[in-house]
Amino acid sequence: MIVSPTQGLQLMADLFDCQGELHLLQKLAPLRAACIDAVQAADLSIVDQSFHQFEPIGVTGVILLAESHVAIHTWPEHRFVSLDIYVCHFSADNSAKAERLLHDLIQRFSSQQPNITRQTRGRPTRRPNNVTNSA
Amino acid sequence: MIVSPTQGLQLMADLFDCQGELHLLQKLAPLRAACIDAVQAADLSIVDQSFHQFEPIGVTGVILLAESHVAIHTWPEHRFVSLDIYVCHFSADNSAKAERLLHDLIQRFSSQQPNITRQTRGRPTRRPNNVTNSA
Repeated sequence: MIVSPTQGLQLMADLFDCQGELHLLQKLAPLRAACIDAVQAADLSIVDQSFHQFEPIGVTGVILLAESHVAIHTWPEHRFVSLDIYVCHFSADNSAKAERLLHDLIQRFSSQQPNITRQTRGRPTRRPNNVTNSA
Repeated sequence: MIVSPTQGLQLMADLFDCQGELHLLQKLAPLRAACIDAVQAADLSIVDQSFHQFEPIGVTGVILLAESHVAIHTWPEHRFVSLDIYVCHFSADNSAKAERLLHDLIQRFSSQQPNITRQTRGRPTRRPNNVTNSA
């Protein structure tokens, strides 16, 4: 399959009933460390990151990737995490890396009710019209 | 309507055929300035931002909001912009602000083929069972 440089995959995950360690949802440092570790384990390339601590608890953050981004927002009082993983397929189809990262983070938060939506982004490339068989 | 604190609206916009000024898609400084200006015009609250310049052209960036985030990726050689606007409804329904920001950015990039998907995030609050009529 020919993949367009602008085409990508976005995984939107509403992670309800997160029964993992609560400090992961409450505080910036452990959440950032877990996200960076998971992104690196999925072999995605970090170009920058930014996390913000809400007081007293709750974190919002993003990791900018060469492949696009990961965004995360936590509501510890509701044991809820909202997660976005977006990878473009600029040099390769990165869907498997995105799915691996999603699986890893669901495990780390121990979400008992993950609600996942997959969305294709960008325009699929049309096959060129001048492809012919030479036989 | 009762709105859950975890509930939100995500606008995913694939902006094809962007006929606006090309430097907006090519370079970090003008893109960041335009995004920050548009976010402030929509009365959303910036808590941090991070943008990365790809060489020689192309930018990826995010603005962290008190209300969640804006993420943007540009492919100037394809006149394509991928945009995400995500607002939670923690203290109020911020849908109108998100829609205003989306409209503003489509105008700035002058996209001739915007492809927009709207996704509800988080769990809707159920009405309490003990609501009764006292008549």
